[in-house]
Amino acid sequence: MRPSGRAADELRSVSITTDVMKNADGSCLIKCGDTHVLCSATVETKLPPWLRNAGHGWITAEYGMLPCATNTRSQREAAKGRQSGRTQEIQRLIGRSLRAACDLTALGEAQIRIDCDVIQADGGTRTAAITGAWVAACQATVAMKKLSLIKALPLKVPLAAVSCGIYKGTPVLDLDYAEDSQADTDANFVLNSEGGLIEIQGTAEKTPFSDTQLLDLLQLAKKGCEALFAAQKAALEI
Amino acid sequence: MRPSGRAADELRSVSITTDVMKNADGSCLIKCGDTHVLCSATVETKLPPWLRNAGHGWITAEYGMLPCATNTRSQREAAKGRQSGRTQEIQRLIGRSLRAACDLTALGEAQIRIDCDVIQADGGTRTAAITGAWVAACQATVAMKKLSLIKALPLKVPLAAVSCGIYKGTPVLDLDYAEDSQADTDANFVLNSEGGLIEIQGTAEKTPFSDTQLLDLLQLAKKGCEALFAAQKAALEI
Amino acid sequence: MRPSGRAADELRSVSITTDVMKNADGSCLIKCGDTHVLCSATVETKLPPWLRNAGHGWITAEYGMLPCATNTRSQREAAKGRQSGRTQEIQRLIGRSLRAACDLTALGEAQIRIDCDVIQADGGTRTAAITGAWVAACQATVAMKKLSLIKALPLKVPLAAVSCGIYKGTPVLDLDYAEDSQADTDANFVLNSEGGLIEIQGTAEKTPFSDTQLLDLLQLAKKGCEALFAAQKAALEI
Amino acid sequence: MRPSGRAADELRSVSITTDVMKNADGSCLIKCGDTHVLCSATVETKLPPWLRNAGHGWITAEYGMLPCATNTRSQREAAKGRQSGRTQEIQRLIGRSLRAACDLTALGEAQIRIDCDVIQADGGTRTAAITGAWVAACQATVAMKKLSLIKALPLKVPLAAVSCGIYKGTPVLDLDYAEDSQADTDANFVLNSEGGLIEIQGTAEKTPFSDTQLLDLLQLAKKGCEALFAAQKAALEI
Amino acid sequence: MRPSGRAADELRSVSITTDVMKNADGSCLIKCGDTHVLCSATVETKLPPWLRNAGHGWITAEYGMLPCATNTRSQREAAKGRQSGRTQEIQRLIGRSLRAACDLTALGEAQIRIDCDVIQADGGTRTAAITGAWVAACQATVAMKKLSLIKALPLKVPLAAVSCGIYKGTPVLDLDYAEDSQADTDANFVLNSEGGLIEIQGTAEKTPFSDTQLLDLLQLAKKGCEALFAAQKAALEI
Amino acid sequence: MRPSGRAADELRSVSITTDVMKNADGSCLIKCGDTHVLCSATVETKLPPWLRNAGHGWITAEYGMLPCATNTRSQREAAKGRQSGRTQEIQRLIGRSLRAACDLTALGEAQIRIDCDVIQADGGTRTAAITGAWVAACQATVAMKKLSLIKALPLKVPLAAVSCGIYKGTPVLDLDYAEDSQADTDANFVLNSEGGLIEIQGTAEKTPFSDTQLLDLLQLAKKGCEALFAAQKAALEI
Repeated sequence: MRPSGRAADELRSVSITTDVMKNADGSCLIKCGDTHVLCSATVETKLPPWLRNAGHGWITAEYGMLPCATNTRSQREAAKGRQSGRTQEIQRLIGRSLRAACDLTALGEAQIRIDCDVIQADGGTRTAAITGAWVAACQATVAMKKLSLIKALPLKVPLAAVSCGIYKGTPVLDLDYAEDSQADTDANFVLNSEGGLIEIQGTAEKTPFSDTQLLDLLQLAKKGCEALFAAQKAALEI
Repeated sequence: MRPSGRAADELRSVSITTDVMKNADGSCLIKCGDTHVLCSATVETKLPPWLRNAGHGWITAEYGMLPCATNTRSQREAAKGRQSGRTQEIQRLIGRSLRAACDLTALGEAQIRIDCDVIQADGGTRTAAITGAWVAACQATVAMKKLSLIKALPLKVPLAAVSCGIYKGTPVLDLDYAEDSQADTDANFVLNSEGGLIEIQGTAEKTPFSDTQLLDLLQLAKKGCEALFAAQKAALEI
Repeated sequence: MRPSGRAADELRSVSITTDVMKNADGSCLIKCGDTHVLCSATVETKLPPWLRNAGHGWITAEYGMLPCATNTRSQREAAKGRQSGRTQEIQRLIGRSLRAACDLTALGEAQIRIDCDVIQADGGTRTAAITGAWVAACQATVAMKKLSLIKALPLKVPLAAVSCGIYKGTPVLDLDYAEDSQADTDANFVLNSEGGLIEIQGTAEKTPFSDTQLLDLLQLAKKGCEALFAAQKAALEI
Repeated sequence: MRPSGRAADELRSVSITTDVMKNADGSCLIKCGDTHVLCSATVETKLPPWLRNAGHGWITAEYGMLPCATNTRSQREAAKGRQSGRTQEIQRLIGRSLRAACDLTALGEAQIRIDCDVIQADGGTRTAAITGAWVAACQATVAMKKLSLIKALPLKVPLAAVSCGIYKGTPVLDLDYAEDSQADTDANFVLNSEGGLIEIQGTAEKTPFSDTQLLDLLQLAKKGCEALFAAQKAALEI
Repeated sequence: MRPSGRAADELRSVSITTDVMKNADGSCLIKCGDTHVLCSATVETKLPPWLRNAGHGWITAEYGMLPCATNTRSQREAAKGRQSGRTQEIQRLIGRSLRAACDLTALGEAQIRIDCDVIQADGGTRTAAITGAWVAACQATVAMKKLSLIKALPLKVPLAAVSCGIYKGTPVLDLDYAEDSQADTDANFVLNSEGGLIEIQGTAEKTPFSDTQLLDLLQLAKKGCEALFAAQKAALEI
Repeated sequence: MRPSGRAADELRSVSITTDVMKNADGSCLIKCGDTHVLCSATVETKLPPWLRNAGHGWITAEYGMLPCATNTRSQREAAKGRQSGRTQEIQRLIGRSLRAACDLTALGEAQIRIDCDVIQADGGTRTAAITGAWVAACQATVAMKKLSLIKALPLKVPLAAVSCGIYKGTPVLDLDYAEDSQADTDANFVLNSEGGLIEIQGTAEKTPFSDTQLLDLLQLAKKGCEALFAAQKAALEI
């Protein structure tokens, strides 16, 4: 019934390859089906002025998409001279999620800068970006610890994200583009591996959704994230 | 226990005054406590190129804040030369919510342009904007019907929005700024008067939240929206 | 003969309501007929770098217009990404006028930031803004004195502004939009309560004007400003 | 008493050299003392969309200043990415003045585009620009008539501009930079050769000015413009 | 002697992997040592207005660099709101080179849009981009022919590019970053496989270079391009 | 055979007039046929932050073109809000060339800012700009020495630039616009008076060029620059 033939609670195949950018302090290429995102983390030991002496560090994120990533070529934001509202919304979400999963005090006077660049898009780029960003950020904190920049690892509990939706009346896990563009409801979940909710964004595209449907989507998301946590662990060899 | 002395499930006092801008096709000033938002609706009978001949109309929204609306004066976005990510996120939310509540086909080849300008801010400006925008849009569609631009009113089911959060461990309704800046979790709910969910955005600022807490917040939001629906009805005299 | 039925030397009804924005150091809503402008003043005790240690303070102003303020909705400048030439011209005029009326040395190492936002426009928004800005600035200086930031009030002589024009051959006071768009000559006068000229800007839209007409307009402006000075006094209860 | 040693009613030496840019439809280099402005006029037979079929033509103007024109090098506006408020104010003034002096209906479906670029600045650049722009525009209309684009010359009455001011208490004609930066009052006058006022902009920098002083400045301006009209005639050989 | 231990006339190892972006009409990942560039080509059958009915097609190019591509993270151009002069210079070079190698008339009323995005940078990104862009463009024209959009392939003669320089007094082929930042002279050569020069850009960083040195660099470039042409052929299986 | 009737190796008539801008530290108007460029140099004794304490000075350049300089009026870059890729490419070239010709260490902690503004364009504006910029910069360094800001003149060897091209199959010197728009190959050469190459930029517009043609163009450029060096000497009276 799903365009891809997947079961309602079936995640797309996931792969996370680390150390793909030699100049970053942490990096991975995450593939969720045909959605491919390069995630990197850069450590900056100088905080922006408004964060200095605040007694804690910071994580910020930027998101971009190569023009040819999408089905129809999209305009390059650098050429347009501005990031779209969608881009800004997504990068704010990535940064907020990572910060919520991090002990910013343990990070000290440092900032981790996340870059998520979509190489190929087939739905769920923002959730793939979050899942990959956590891996890249994790590597960066390990590197910081080796350099004695920090004493304890500040990213203790793994964080992953997935989108779910009501597609032709049925709650399904991990929407691809074909489903996303047709779904009645689309919801993004950012969860940690202890079952805590970090962020939830649900939108009715056509028909309002009910409390029950919200809970159904949440259960699917929890199932999906289990697989993502496993992929993160395997990638980081932890 | 709340800084304002309100009960956990107590909404701030709400007032909606209509017809406050003589040049708009619909307008109101909504006050939710010390949060004051001017909402207006303008009907355009010429659609943007990408929507022409699509067989339906459109609703779009813009959001702004007067520099002195906030506790500390904020920089004027027109002077900065760009709308912040926050502004864009909010105006996308307002437009999306209104469209989800509207029978766009019944709107015909017309666009309703919503403007929400925050005169004074004390938390919950985006939810107040949505609640007020629905009133202004409603008036605009009534005006359209009088001019025979449309046959049926396309905004059938009222729409309102409110924020809830976990403040010092307790789920509370309608966060003001003092609470919002301290809350562990902050969630915005856009609901219709039939109990349907249009949009839900929940964010853990510090501690992740649980399924139960999400449901608690949803129940508070439902209660709060009942009062908002009543205020909308009273304002529109329907 | 005038579209509004007013006599040639008749001002529109004026009202000035103070303390309309709780976060500003001074604020008022000035209504000159259907022209409504929110004026606020914010005190900043840190001067911009190029003014530090100059031995005096500064007053600067920004001007904006809500999109729905005008007869036909105007584009939001924050969304366009730039302030129009008209906007910049007006805010430069407001700032220059206020500075000319202020003992900047008595202001000390502080800056007063004026915001004038047009809620509804029916001609004469810049002159209403100046008249209202003086009230808001005045309040701000009173607040500064209470906080012992200054010793003496630096805005000694009241300042007001009004537009006059040659409408169908006759000099008239306080142009509304219907007149302004048809007038042969349009002139804005910024005067102080001692009869001094602070700024005069006269423009022939169609037919050049004569020395005599200029003087006629100036006499009308003086008459109009008398009423404005009275309204300012009443609003400030001085 | 004046820094330049000029009498109070003495204009700087003026020279207007025409045909200095081979690609323009009209051009001149106007020198008012050490203020040098290149003025050119380009005829466009296609009107901007909002002016098509309005039954008349248009004149618009742009103003710029070479970075090294000023005493201290100023930042290049093209590099900054925006025209300053001052630049926009000036180019609006130039365009408005030229339009007021032109029979736009006689211009037909054409637009004259004026460019005024300051090569060297020593006060009075905007007034020199207007005086020179009239010459360039005049040449352009003569060229249009030769090409039978128009039947009658639309710029009938010469137009010139000059600044006057109260310098150390005395009204003086044609302020140079040394005076301009010290003057109590600075006023720009745009006059036509029949004694009509096109535009007047007077500003009190420090002390308010009186009705009498305004009239004194106006008389000086009239005297100065006589010399400018003569220079225009000589340059155009009419 | 070279930091990499390469011989003076030794190219870095080159690999070109095609079909790396499923949504593009042609794509490859080109690796020249540690310089990795994603190149894609998109066919647009609608020309920009200024090229319509010109009787020929067009090729244009855009260039970007992921923030983490460089040794020290560079600022994202989309976030800065403008493309740097360097970026614009490079993308103009890529487009100009491809157009010079293409029979634009055979391309018909179509435009090929090239995107070159640097994933990792170690010197020579612009030359790698050109070499890869030719491969992607080639694929796109083959796809166009299959769809009968064109009759003949318009990219007949292969095109490749390489940088050479004078490093510590010796002409060397294919500068990497360590050499590039130290070289006295840096020159980029765009050559076709018939020995023709398409573009040459030589710059003396410290010491001027001589005619003889220019010819030495050209000979090295020719040698290097032979290997690049072979890699292109292998990648395209032609 | 050339549109201008010049011999293949004939330069256009050159004139360099110095001291044309009283506020610059060095300036000249260079005319190469109908190409006229105003070049000025400004000394800044405060370096930009990234150059402080680097032990040497800097030269940077900006380039602009008056809208009426070209055959068809071009849009003003300050009004467009951005400098074109072409402008940035040219100003980068000018700055790089001047720096390569300068002993930056001898310049000390100072920056020379070059402005090249094209008053009239007939091909070869960037090369004329470089030739003129060297004169202006030279004057500025002489002024610095007089003020004891430097001990030795840092611009020892004269620098000039000229464009050559293959026009209708023949290598010709100093392309004017009529030739430039038709040439098969266009190459810009920046040379010093000792025969050293500072910069070479050759582009095949239609047909690739050969090694031999490159050398032919280089010989023409050397001949042309001899005349330019003589004109520079005459202008500087050295």
